[in-house]
Amino acid sequence: MHRAGAGGGHGDFHGVFPYLVSPIDDNGHVKEAVLVRLVNDLIEAGVHGLTPLGSTGEFAYLNAAQRRRIVEVVVHAARGRVPVVAGVASTTIAEAVEQARSWDELGVDGILAILEAYFPLTEDGVVRYFNAVAAATARPVVLYTNPQFQRSDLSLRAIEKLAATPNIRYLKDASSDTGRLLSILGVVGDRIRVFSASAHIPACVMLIGGVGWMAGPACLVPRQSVELYELCRKGDWNAAMALQRRLWQMNRAFAQYNLAACIKGGLEMQGYDVGPPLAPQMPLSDAGRAEVRAILSELSAGPTVQTARRRTPGPPDAARTSSAGIEAPADRSTSTPRRRAIRRGTSRSAVRRG
Amino acid sequence: MHRAGAGGGHGDFHGVFPYLVSPIDDNGHVKEAVLVRLVNDLIEAGVHGLTPLGSTGEFAYLNAAQRRRIVEVVVHAARGRVPVVAGVASTTIAEAVEQARSWDELGVDGILAILEAYFPLTEDGVVRYFNAVAAATARPVVLYTNPQFQRSDLSLRAIEKLAATPNIRYLKDASSDTGRLLSILGVVGDRIRVFSASAHIPACVMLIGGVGWMAGPACLVPRQSVELYELCRKGDWNAAMALQRRLWQMNRAFAQYNLAACIKGGLEMQGYDVGPPLAPQMPLSDAGRAEVRAILSELSAGPTVQTARRRTPGPPDAARTSSAGIEAPADRSTSTPRRRAIRRGTSRSAVRRG
Amino acid sequence: MHRAGAGGGHGDFHGVFPYLVSPIDDNGHVKEAVLVRLVNDLIEAGVHGLTPLGSTGEFAYLNAAQRRRIVEVVVHAARGRVPVVAGVASTTIAEAVEQARSWDELGVDGILAILEAYFPLTEDGVVRYFNAVAAATARPVVLYTNPQFQRSDLSLRAIEKLAATPNIRYLKDASSDTGRLLSILGVVGDRIRVFSASAHIPACVMLIGGVGWMAGPACLVPRQSVELYELCRKGDWNAAMALQRRLWQMNRAFAQYNLAACIKGGLEMQGYDVGPPLAPQMPLSDAGRAEVRAILSELSAGPTVQTARRRTPGPPDAARTSSAGIEAPADRSTSTPRRRAIRRGTSRSAVRRG
Amino acid sequence: MHRAGAGGGHGDFHGVFPYLVSPIDDNGHVKEAVLVRLVNDLIEAGVHGLTPLGSTGEFAYLNAAQRRRIVEVVVHAARGRVPVVAGVASTTIAEAVEQARSWDELGVDGILAILEAYFPLTEDGVVRYFNAVAAATARPVVLYTNPQFQRSDLSLRAIEKLAATPNIRYLKDASSDTGRLLSILGVVGDRIRVFSASAHIPACVMLIGGVGWMAGPACLVPRQSVELYELCRKGDWNAAMALQRRLWQMNRAFAQYNLAACIKGGLEMQGYDVGPPLAPQMPLSDAGRAEVRAILSELSAGPTVQTARRRTPGPPDAARTSSAGIEAPADRSTSTPRRRAIRRGTSRSAVRRG
Repeated sequence: MHRAGAGGGHGDFHGVFPYLVSPIDDNGHVKEAVLVRLVNDLIEAGVHGLTPLGSTGEFAYLNAAQRRRIVEVVVHAARGRVPVVAGVASTTIAEAVEQARSWDELGVDGILAILEAYFPLTEDGVVRYFNAVAAATARPVVLYTNPQFQRSDLSLRAIEKLAATPNIRYLKDASSDTGRLLSILGVVGDRIRVFSASAHIPACVMLIGGVGWMAGPACLVPRQSVELYELCRKGDWNAAMALQRRLWQMNRAFAQYNLAACIKGGLEMQGYDVGPPLAPQMPLSDAGRAEVRAILSELSAGPTVQTARRRTPGPPDAARTSSAGIEAPADRSTSTPRRRAIRRGTSRSAVRRG
Repeated sequence: MHRAGAGGGHGDFHGVFPYLVSPIDDNGHVKEAVLVRLVNDLIEAGVHGLTPLGSTGEFAYLNAAQRRRIVEVVVHAARGRVPVVAGVASTTIAEAVEQARSWDELGVDGILAILEAYFPLTEDGVVRYFNAVAAATARPVVLYTNPQFQRSDLSLRAIEKLAATPNIRYLKDASSDTGRLLSILGVVGDRIRVFSASAHIPACVMLIGGVGWMAGPACLVPRQSVELYELCRKGDWNAAMALQRRLWQMNRAFAQYNLAACIKGGLEMQGYDVGPPLAPQMPLSDAGRAEVRAILSELSAGPTVQTARRRTPGPPDAARTSSAGIEAPADRSTSTPRRRAIRRGTSRSAVRRG
Repeated sequence: MHRAGAGGGHGDFHGVFPYLVSPIDDNGHVKEAVLVRLVNDLIEAGVHGLTPLGSTGEFAYLNAAQRRRIVEVVVHAARGRVPVVAGVASTTIAEAVEQARSWDELGVDGILAILEAYFPLTEDGVVRYFNAVAAATARPVVLYTNPQFQRSDLSLRAIEKLAATPNIRYLKDASSDTGRLLSILGVVGDRIRVFSASAHIPACVMLIGGVGWMAGPACLVPRQSVELYELCRKGDWNAAMALQRRLWQMNRAFAQYNLAACIKGGLEMQGYDVGPPLAPQMPLSDAGRAEVRAILSELSAGPTVQTARRRTPGPPDAARTSSAGIEAPADRSTSTPRRRAIRRGTSRSAVRRG
Repeated sequence: MHRAGAGGGHGDFHGVFPYLVSPIDDNGHVKEAVLVRLVNDLIEAGVHGLTPLGSTGEFAYLNAAQRRRIVEVVVHAARGRVPVVAGVASTTIAEAVEQARSWDELGVDGILAILEAYFPLTEDGVVRYFNAVAAATARPVVLYTNPQFQRSDLSLRAIEKLAATPNIRYLKDASSDTGRLLSILGVVGDRIRVFSASAHIPACVMLIGGVGWMAGPACLVPRQSVELYELCRKGDWNAAMALQRRLWQMNRAFAQYNLAACIKGGLEMQGYDVGPPLAPQMPLSDAGRAEVRAILSELSAGPTVQTARRRTPGPPDAARTSSAGIEAPADRSTSTPRRRAIRRGTSRSAVRRG
């Protein structure tokens, strides 16, 4: 199915943009097959765009070659069906500009601009950085700010200055302060559109005027995420909150663990062999695995599955066993490739494609 | 107008609870007349309850005698029309228990329990404190947590433990992390009801299942606050957000200044002689005054005034010139008591009572 | 032994000023006898001054009556032998001024001025506060700053302004940043003298030009603290560091626990019935007790005891078995007031006076 | 002059190790000539070792090629006269191991191991990282910890575990908490030697048992730094503190600015064309320049110059005009290569070489 304009004519970004994980093998190579499969499945689940090299994508743990290959694989796999907005992240303008130009040449639809810092920066330095990235591409730029992880935050005044740059058109805020988003919209809402991150409640961000969310958990529950987005868009807030409450269990649990470990661990449960986060990050602990498994299991049952019947059958290489499906733990240890293929096929027609 | 059950039968708290300022004169005495007038006006504006000795009430700056007198005056002035939920705040259990008992005897309808700390506390110590306060009163207790100001926060696990205490029935969260509220509701939502603070967007907290807000800004814009609450309750989210966006200007501005200085400064502009915050806190700066004045002026105009026609005329000593009304700066310096009385009378019939 | 001018002619403060604990019984009354005994023992151990109502003295947990009584008892017990520098601590100028005047009337030799804050203060507000305290007393004032616990810190610029006030003559810094002290001395070293806190290494503060330390651990090891001070004053840095290394074990251990719980717990082991910290603070945990006990035991043995040869043997149940001596736990439970009285008398002549 | 064992037989590191700046031109190439000259001048000034790719060396702002070239140039320029301890810094074990192996092959004498992190790490992850770096080289490893800049700190327990690894033999602490160093020495002092950073007072770290310091300011005042080190080693603490007080002005000033901007700006004043810090970092502000200039000027005068007479004349291409010498600002704008050569020659024989 081709989703013309799924992400908004590929220049009008909106909706659910999963932060893609970065599957890397022991030799440091991108595990391309599983990344392609994840891209296909997410698009078929209805996501509106894809964001490689976000925080969940472990951008801070990848070298230059790995980053480039991730972008190449994702752009190629997406085949224009949804926009790809790839992360650019550096401490220096020189390196960020080089990344932006490279991603541009590889065919991305937009740039997620992330500022890293070691020494604190002045506001002028922050503005210079983002404007340099924007000048390096003709694509729309999404400003990214995460006060928790970087040493420099985007002040409201810096955002106001940056909003004057024509292709700086979006902001993705990874704080947990939703009021900050309303303040930003109050000042630059006519020029900048706002995406939520997983630390905000997506339904709240939609209520106050956001256009969607870019977040890791959507990798695990793409269909429900899209359903939530659609309920918000329709203004069916009661139904939206009913679904939001169920999905929030995941955000609540993930806040206790390394985010990349959670998403990668959950994807492994769903049959995606994406591997652990890059060392010395540790794989999800046993307690974390149990918690993620329980949540995915609970989310795969229940009322949100009903919409699945509208879907058409998908290709046989699909993996998910259910909406937020997981394989039973017992099955995993004994499963063979053959059994997995069967189970996957079943699950797709039965649940995801119904 | 008597508002039977305005705050919920005085045991089912909900709606808008302004954090009352604490007007203290140069000799350290409570300025009772202006406090009584503020209480009357807020009740007539429709607020659902009153909260003396919250953070905006400068509890941390008042001595024992001042705190006691504030509670006495407010309870007496409220005359049972709306519930009074008074702040109890201490570093020690002994002192907190004494306050809770005293407020109880003075006739409050509930206790807002605030934990102060100098040395960090264990979770057990935190739970002990709040349970001791709850045991000292038969009234409903509102847990208060403000990670920004105190050194000990209420963990989700501590809240879960406290929810087992029958009269711990509410929580007022002063963080800016709305997702935290949804997590709390996910765990103890069947036992604990949640109030927002001014750092959250009230409409968002209502959307996710909150029952109202306790906040300083409602002192300045009580009628619009009540209107916002009613729109949220009706599920008219479009209208709610239209009003919320206008009101949020105030929260955005206040985040830059000392909160008590802002509310007291704004009330002075509205004709309430509440004085400055207690020294060494500084009065609102000139820049702050200009910003608060502009916002109050903007809020007092426009579409939200339309609902005023439902109201009945009030007593002649009312003070507000308009919904969020302010006196023109030029007028203030030259105004005489007589001119003020005239202006007040006019404003009341024309705007607030219209 | 009378120590005329031990603390410097009572206006030239220097040396070891133990932060006194505040022993409070279950009814909220000051346990006067044990406080008097502690004061006497510390003076006889050679300390140069006494500081009631510091952080270890739980000033933040005491009500007005308790604070006043502590100061009265300490001033009376000290009988002018060493200077008493009492803590004044408040969020408001009005209350701080009242405390300073009261302590003055009670006969203190100096004021330790502590600023508490709830809302952040401007630098002007900070300067106003300390200058108001200084204006309320003719005694020397010690500025206290503890960035860890209060919300407002004394900037270098604020200190420079305050140094112009004649009776602001000392600073006690409770950060762990010794370089900050050298910076302060570089700017106001001709007007302000600097005391260390327990987060600094006293020997280092002495090396860079400090005049002593005000700290809780000196309650437990007064004699060794004085010995360390004297070694530093003589410039015998090798011996000073040998002793400092041994004493630092205590600071290292205490950093893990509530400081008041550690000092009170250690004093209990030494036979001072000072009770636990005020609830909801928890008494020292079992692990903490074991660690404090082991350190006190180790400190009471070994080379620093060499000065003990001046001593005469004491009875086997002596309260302080040595310089930093502890009683065996079993002894404590069986001791009677009578036995304790005997032991105290004995221990004083036998061990501490030896 | 050959300094056999200057840094301790190149395996027994001690003394002053300047953190070298990384001069990069507009095309991203290492400015090799100025780096070689700086290395030569520092060695001739008596420093005991060199540390490329520390924080002052902007390791966090350099790409893989730049890092490698910096190490190559420094090792080649040092010609074995003093040990070169080069920084390895990454978020991943894979990348850190590759750097350690490469620096090893390039001939460094030791590795400064820096952990970067985006998501918080468990203690196990931290230990794994440092042990992996140590396993990748036979050279001594210096653990680096900077709680201010990275998201994961080395706990005392992690350090204890790492001390069991034979070639982990040093620790360089960039906190400002000198007591932490004494705690570390108390636990692993028999296995791990400690270097100070510029946030500590070097004389204090020497007093408590440190073996030297690794810091950026030593680039600007190498001779005085070495003099301070020698005074500390001799136990001449009075003279050491007299010099330390003068040098501390620099640390005090630098704390206000970007450290790389300060050191690079100061070196430019001394005639080293190292350029500004990498964008978007800003060059030193005018106020910062004036302050650095005044301090260098003050340090270049006075008693510390006296030891210069021991030195022999150096080559004509030397740059420094005096011990901490700076060129007069007026001169800089008008100076020609010829005038510079003259001035440099003069300064060397007159002051640095005496």
